Amino acid sequence: MDTVTRLKSAIRDIPDFPQPGILFRDITPLLNDPEVFHVAITEFARTCREAGAERIAGIDARGFLFGATVAYELNLGFVPIRKKGKLPFQTLGQSYDLEYGSSEIEIHTDAFRPGERVALIDDLLATGGTGGAAVKLIQRAGAQVVTAAFLIELTALGGRAALGEIPVTSIISY
Amino acid sequence: MDTVTRLKSAIRDIPDFPQPGILFRDITPLLNDPEVFHVAITEFARTCREAGAERIAGIDARGFLFGATVAYELNLGFVPIRKKGKLPFQTLGQSYDLEYGSSEIEIHTDAFRPGERVALIDDLLATGGTGGAAVKLIQRAGAQVVTAAFLIELTALGGRAALGEIPVTSIISY
Repeated sequence: MDTVTRLKSAIRDIPDFPQPGILFRDITPLLNDPEVFHVAITEFARTCREAGAERIAGIDARGFLFGATVAYELNLGFVPIRKKGKLPFQTLGQSYDLEYGSSEIEIHTDAFRPGERVALIDDLLATGGTGGAAVKLIQRAGAQVVTAAFLIELTALGGRAALGEIPVTSIISY
Repeated sequence: MDTVTRLKSAIRDIPDFPQPGILFRDITPLLNDPEVFHVAITEFARTCREAGAERIAGIDARGFLFGATVAYELNLGFVPIRKKGKLPFQTLGQSYDLEYGSSEIEIHTDAFRPGERVALIDDLLATGGTGGAAVKLIQRAGAQVVTAAFLIELTALGGRAALGEIPVTSIISY
């Protein structure tokens, strides 16, 4: 079985979550199967290595699962990008639009060295709202995003456009 | 430098966060130093191995950083315990008291095999509200908690009492 087939077989489709008409891709079976999780981390790590990443950033909360593990595997530092109000030191904030209303994520101002090469990791690229805001935060904090890597990309939602010129990688796409 | 001193040197004290009078222990410098993060994961992994853990559970969101990485290191499955409304499959919920009001966390009903030995991981043991609720969820889902392991324990808050008979380990205590 190839990598994509193996990973897809560990993702469960949940209709009508979190609201009617949405087909949710549930990654909990993948997390709960250590061999498949290992395959996913290996793919992320390869992407980050090829991009010459010097630090890993991950988005609250599912991006923490993959981001921290990839940082561990590559022996790089990890930077959390969190929902507003969670980071205790000096922060930069970036808001982004949701279907109804908006949300805001934050990063610590001292997260990076100037010009550092950062890989951004999250589980899902959908409309790109969160990912695009995360890219801006990393750049505003003085670093460069050398790759944005996602486990799953929902291609019909066109999220890559929100990430501008950043090289985007997804391991699985639907 | 011994392990505890080294870990403590990578934790930053932030006064009056999230509210006046609270001294917040900021773990972001620890996450951002791969050698120190490695020390923390090694300690967690040893605790889980000695307890004979067959699966790792971690609590949303900072518990994901350590829990998923420890599961990866030990080649075990990882189970997320999440804030209410985030898990898409059939869930069990458990509420717990906060200083003002209450909160609820959830787990998937199919997370474990019956009787399985589970290690619960989180970054912080404070009053034990979240940890105690997480223990109940794991037990209600049909598994047993063989250890509850925390990076930091705030001993003055007496959180161990909320975990009942479960063996509790903390790597650092204040």
